[in-house]
Amino acid sequence: MSELPLDLIKQALIEDGAYRDLTTLSTVPATAQGWAVLLARSEGVIAGLPVALAAFRLLDERVESEALVEDGETVVASQTLARLSGPARALLSAERVALNFLGHLSGIATLTARCVRAVAGTGVRILDTRKTTPGLRALEKEAVRLGGGVNHRFGLSDGILIKDNHIKAAGGVAAAVEAVRRQVPHLLKIEVECETLDEVRAALRAGADVILLDNMELDLLRQAVALVRAEAPGVLLEASGGIGPDPERLAAVAGTGVDFISLGALTHSAPNLDVALEFL
Amino acid sequence: MSELPLDLIKQALIEDGAYRDLTTLSTVPATAQGWAVLLARSEGVIAGLPVALAAFRLLDERVESEALVEDGETVVASQTLARLSGPARALLSAERVALNFLGHLSGIATLTARCVRAVAGTGVRILDTRKTTPGLRALEKEAVRLGGGVNHRFGLSDGILIKDNHIKAAGGVAAAVEAVRRQVPHLLKIEVECETLDEVRAALRAGADVILLDNMELDLLRQAVALVRAEAPGVLLEASGGIGPDPERLAAVAGTGVDFISLGALTHSAPNLDVALEFL
Amino acid sequence: MSELPLDLIKQALIEDGAYRDLTTLSTVPATAQGWAVLLARSEGVIAGLPVALAAFRLLDERVESEALVEDGETVVASQTLARLSGPARALLSAERVALNFLGHLSGIATLTARCVRAVAGTGVRILDTRKTTPGLRALEKEAVRLGGGVNHRFGLSDGILIKDNHIKAAGGVAAAVEAVRRQVPHLLKIEVECETLDEVRAALRAGADVILLDNMELDLLRQAVALVRAEAPGVLLEASGGIGPDPERLAAVAGTGVDFISLGALTHSAPNLDVALEFL
Amino acid sequence: MSELPLDLIKQALIEDGAYRDLTTLSTVPATAQGWAVLLARSEGVIAGLPVALAAFRLLDERVESEALVEDGETVVASQTLARLSGPARALLSAERVALNFLGHLSGIATLTARCVRAVAGTGVRILDTRKTTPGLRALEKEAVRLGGGVNHRFGLSDGILIKDNHIKAAGGVAAAVEAVRRQVPHLLKIEVECETLDEVRAALRAGADVILLDNMELDLLRQAVALVRAEAPGVLLEASGGIGPDPERLAAVAGTGVDFISLGALTHSAPNLDVALEFL
Amino acid sequence: MSELPLDLIKQALIEDGAYRDLTTLSTVPATAQGWAVLLARSEGVIAGLPVALAAFRLLDERVESEALVEDGETVVASQTLARLSGPARALLSAERVALNFLGHLSGIATLTARCVRAVAGTGVRILDTRKTTPGLRALEKEAVRLGGGVNHRFGLSDGILIKDNHIKAAGGVAAAVEAVRRQVPHLLKIEVECETLDEVRAALRAGADVILLDNMELDLLRQAVALVRAEAPGVLLEASGGIGPDPERLAAVAGTGVDFISLGALTHSAPNLDVALEFL
Amino acid sequence: MSELPLDLIKQALIEDGAYRDLTTLSTVPATAQGWAVLLARSEGVIAGLPVALAAFRLLDERVESEALVEDGETVVASQTLARLSGPARALLSAERVALNFLGHLSGIATLTARCVRAVAGTGVRILDTRKTTPGLRALEKEAVRLGGGVNHRFGLSDGILIKDNHIKAAGGVAAAVEAVRRQVPHLLKIEVECETLDEVRAALRAGADVILLDNMELDLLRQAVALVRAEAPGVLLEASGGIGPDPERLAAVAGTGVDFISLGALTHSAPNLDVALEFL
Repeated sequence: MSELPLDLIKQALIEDGAYRDLTTLSTVPATAQGWAVLLARSEGVIAGLPVALAAFRLLDERVESEALVEDGETVVASQTLARLSGPARALLSAERVALNFLGHLSGIATLTARCVRAVAGTGVRILDTRKTTPGLRALEKEAVRLGGGVNHRFGLSDGILIKDNHIKAAGGVAAAVEAVRRQVPHLLKIEVECETLDEVRAALRAGADVILLDNMELDLLRQAVALVRAEAPGVLLEASGGIGPDPERLAAVAGTGVDFISLGALTHSAPNLDVALEFL
Repeated sequence: MSELPLDLIKQALIEDGAYRDLTTLSTVPATAQGWAVLLARSEGVIAGLPVALAAFRLLDERVESEALVEDGETVVASQTLARLSGPARALLSAERVALNFLGHLSGIATLTARCVRAVAGTGVRILDTRKTTPGLRALEKEAVRLGGGVNHRFGLSDGILIKDNHIKAAGGVAAAVEAVRRQVPHLLKIEVECETLDEVRAALRAGADVILLDNMELDLLRQAVALVRAEAPGVLLEASGGIGPDPERLAAVAGTGVDFISLGALTHSAPNLDVALEFL
Repeated sequence: MSELPLDLIKQALIEDGAYRDLTTLSTVPATAQGWAVLLARSEGVIAGLPVALAAFRLLDERVESEALVEDGETVVASQTLARLSGPARALLSAERVALNFLGHLSGIATLTARCVRAVAGTGVRILDTRKTTPGLRALEKEAVRLGGGVNHRFGLSDGILIKDNHIKAAGGVAAAVEAVRRQVPHLLKIEVECETLDEVRAALRAGADVILLDNMELDLLRQAVALVRAEAPGVLLEASGGIGPDPERLAAVAGTGVDFISLGALTHSAPNLDVALEFL
Repeated sequence: MSELPLDLIKQALIEDGAYRDLTTLSTVPATAQGWAVLLARSEGVIAGLPVALAAFRLLDERVESEALVEDGETVVASQTLARLSGPARALLSAERVALNFLGHLSGIATLTARCVRAVAGTGVRILDTRKTTPGLRALEKEAVRLGGGVNHRFGLSDGILIKDNHIKAAGGVAAAVEAVRRQVPHLLKIEVECETLDEVRAALRAGADVILLDNMELDLLRQAVALVRAEAPGVLLEASGGIGPDPERLAAVAGTGVDFISLGALTHSAPNLDVALEFL
Repeated sequence: MSELPLDLIKQALIEDGAYRDLTTLSTVPATAQGWAVLLARSEGVIAGLPVALAAFRLLDERVESEALVEDGETVVASQTLARLSGPARALLSAERVALNFLGHLSGIATLTARCVRAVAGTGVRILDTRKTTPGLRALEKEAVRLGGGVNHRFGLSDGILIKDNHIKAAGGVAAAVEAVRRQVPHLLKIEVECETLDEVRAALRAGADVILLDNMELDLLRQAVALVRAEAPGVLLEASGGIGPDPERLAAVAGTGVDFISLGALTHSAPNLDVALEFL
Repeated sequence: MSELPLDLIKQALIEDGAYRDLTTLSTVPATAQGWAVLLARSEGVIAGLPVALAAFRLLDERVESEALVEDGETVVASQTLARLSGPARALLSAERVALNFLGHLSGIATLTARCVRAVAGTGVRILDTRKTTPGLRALEKEAVRLGGGVNHRFGLSDGILIKDNHIKAAGGVAAAVEAVRRQVPHLLKIEVECETLDEVRAALRAGADVILLDNMELDLLRQAVALVRAEAPGVLLEASGGIGPDPERLAAVAGTGVDFISLGALTHSAPNLDVALEFL
């Protein structure tokens, strides 16, 4: 299934002026052939390699490429990711766009994998959020999956998360859950955001399917987990808010017994993975 | 001049499902009014505030907003950035897109400002690169300017930067510069990337207007600066490669006497600035 | 929240040549004013009136209009739906596009309302399907809601419905449900399509949240309902397949005790509601 | 000539979430192959088969398909329309979009064919109107041709049809025809809508090339035909308004001797043809 | 009716970099106000003035403008066409795009008016062709109308012109006309291209509504006119091919008695009208 | 590098109705094959041949074509430019769009070549301007290069040209140059427009890299050249304004010793080159 976002890649090439690379057009003959490799310069999890390779092909369909690793693989520094050959102009002019996608998405996958490792063995799953870069959500959420994370809802139209302002507007959590159940597609579960044990109790009474435990200290988290497990064993629990990618903090939160931890930093603050194109 | 990227903001709203926010539509009455403020949760330089405010207005033109700071201002934690009022549904449904733009762009401006401060007093200017997020280059480069940085070329079609592969393909740096001068618009200066003193000398002889000193140690940088200042006082010097946003390293590079330092990290690895929408 | 699909309306105007209405441009002076009313020519439920009015305004922003009924209202034959005034050219040139939207969407709302009436008092809810007209799904699903129906999932990315081919590919219903639960957002319920009681039992064992009873005779439906209510009272039941909009058939299916009946005909075979524009 | 509306099909796939079919992606392996056939479930005239097959190929170019009938052919219930093979994921995820196009367009062709048969032997031709579904006019008008009908003008910019409001605005039918003749491309004939014999006489005097006899009873139609044939044998006659797809009514109208009968119902109220995808 | 091609104007502004006019942004303060006039620098017929004024407003909605002449008016050298005021940046940055539209379209209107004058008094009408600039056909054909010309068909889908290759493919002119009459909308006249008297006779026999006399010398033209007027007085005659905008040649062709003369040069070779923006 | 503007060509085909060529569809069988050649009807320099050939292929991918000349070649009248074969329908329906591109762009290349010849031997280079047809700038500027000309800046965002209004707004030429140097990318040279010797002196003092000598008589031009060569030998000189494509005038201006002459007429007033498609 061709899931490559070709329009997006094309827009990025246009944005970068790749179709009118003045330096390359005036110094490199149209007939010159080039050979190059994509390299990782530090350890990480690769994401976006097919996107990067497509950037070269989109600019010039004569570029041939062979991926040596698959998206989701962990690579070491200096590892070769792909081989490319074709018109030297296209290799030079598409290089930056290809690396921008690859470095950004691999950065997200790498950070996700680090977080997943931090909670290994606990059964807790690492979730992303809607805190993504405008225009890149589908790719960034895929990078999270490639790093071993799990996607939260894609957007506002494919999942229900009732927050305090919804509760106030509906006149209480019971009314909010009831209103949602009456009006939204019957295939969606209902998640309710809670900051106190009282709110957790109210959410349970209202029939929430999932509870988001927001900004709770470890102790409070533990009590919330105990409460829910005792009263409503089928209800899922997600911890969120101020957690960040620090491994010890993640392990501690995971130790409270929640089912999920969600982190905005996975997509909004992951540093680039250092990748490069090297000509042979 | 309406420079707001309305199409991009609209796409982001669509991407987030903001036009079909199931939770809000079923819990918040169409007639409910809301009042809210945008807040900074940590210190930083603001960028993208007009974009964020436009997201609300695009979703519902009845939303009124008043910016309390201007893009480029430094704010402290808890400072109010803007006030909003209007249909509560629109405030809730556009919140995430607005914050995604604001947090991302302010993160870039904040990191840039930190780098600019690190070289204050030296006359050195901090440059961005083409290592930007696909689709957001114009906004990200504006965030760099707001943080006090200066933009390098926007893309491949509005600046000449001759790298080693161009030189090889053209048959030497002299031939490359000559080819460029013959073919590209006469309003563009010619920058040549160099990694050794020999390459610097060759670039000077070829008539480069600007020299990029790539991946040089401090000592080598100093020698290169001395060489160029002695032989071609009008030529500009840019340091690049492996510098990163560390203040001491930046100060040391600035101390070598170059004119510019360029940093990919400004746009590809700036952590989000923590911003929030709070309902009143 | 401006949910009007302005791009779609504009495309329809372009498709109809409304910007170059040769007859009108050559016979009606640019300065001529017109007054007109939108009328229903038969009884029905109105949907798409704001869309229809927007078509006139999009063609010429000087057109003024006042809706006399709201979407979702039931109207009688000859009832006036809206009043319009403005440049006569725009009223004439946008008329057909406006009526095409209004007649199509009101036809869907009217058919839905008839089906909802047929099951009134049983607690059963009428669902739409994904059998919609390409390009119009959002509007058609809104028309179903306006007629009193409930929306099934919007598309393949916001709901889980496991059919026989998914079950075969996954190696059994238990494996399929398990695979889904592991990989899809945790806010989605899992629906399984069944044609026999054995399949229903397997779906219950696998932990399905919702069961689609496909193409079952009334007797079999009753047995399936009894089975599920006895063994898994929280599981929801949807009847589908070969039901059609016939009121007696709908009442009979509703009498079996299912929670939902879904009908493709609501969106793929609803006859147009007869609407007209009359000049005063 | 590639007349397939690929953009429209792609939009429909996106609208349906076919690029992120959560159920299929989690239950069907990427490597699984599938074999399937497109079937008619009732008798009808096929239209849109190449469009339906293109939907599969657009989602995954590895899908192979072979049409067993051509658009415009009449098929019987259970007849196989096409064979497909390829990645099982693509077959499952594109199925609904393919069937939505095929069922809708074949429904139009089937209804058209029924109307054409009703007037067989009279020399009367069945015309469509501009009462089409927004966004689908080109496909729907092609379906009418495939059913044996003839297209009226495509839109307002490629045909002249003077209605009562144009006549009033121009100050009489003579002035209207004259204004049109002076200003519109000389390759267009001029049609005038008439509801009475007096209007028919005026249209003839004004030099109309075609007369639309709107909403006339059979008797009045016969008189109008007699009048025109006597006085202006070259003028074409079209009956329209309140005719509908009832065969007897059509035969009766055809019997009056008009040249054309136009029916909005062909495109705005044709029920779907029942088509299905069956996996082998 | 808002017939302004806003998308096209916006694309032109983007193409010209008007949203990032580096010179203006760095030299002109954001708050500076400007006053300017649009001027004709030579005599001509104005076309595209509303388009030009829209370019300024699109760039900055605060620009105010007042047209002092209407499209279609003849102006003298130095005549003021419009007054503008608003942010000086917007006036400077949109100037070139505005002038490019205005100069190009007025050039076409001016050349058309000259050709129309050359045949004044003969009753002959000047037609344009499909030899237009890609992307600008609607504007260019409007400019022709503003200059007093008449539009030929807009494109291949709204008019029938049978050329020699169509005749060969159909097996003769009679077969071609018959095939067209059977299949195309009944509101279209049929034009047949002829180069000899024999072809003219065949076209008449086949029932052509209009005959295009292509590349005929004056003498042959006169014979063709005589032949057609004698045998088929209702048939229209168009002269075309190698005529060009020379006034004497036009008058001579008009003198043969044809109804229309069509000229590709109107749209493909009209020199720009010299227009300018002058700041006050 | 696929630099063909496929979207633009496709839009032109749609604009021309090439996908619904009524005449061709009804007279030429779908299976008919055609053979044709593209011909020059007068001498000139070819530009846009790959664009023209792409038009045929875009309409029907089965069209095969072979270019017999390359863009930039000078051809004589009657010379064959390319051979085509494929479905006759596609050859007929794409013909006009292909010729419109080819004639327009070759017209520009031909006029440019004539201007370049007029200054041959002087070392002066012929520049284009931003006076291009909206939507076609990239192609038109390429045509200029093919004719032997050199491109000025592409748009406002990739070059600095300070005009009198910028100077007034900035408070003098020194302030303007200084403001630009501080704010724009360091790879751009700064050009200043001057109309008098005093302005030239001020520009030199301000540090301009290039000076545009606007609307100067020959004598004044000579003095300006002498002044600049004496005081600032590295500064480039461009003559502009009221020069036009007259060879003697061009030679005279070139004789003054400037480096460049820029001409708006290259792109805004070049007459079409006469090209044709001939069927074999």
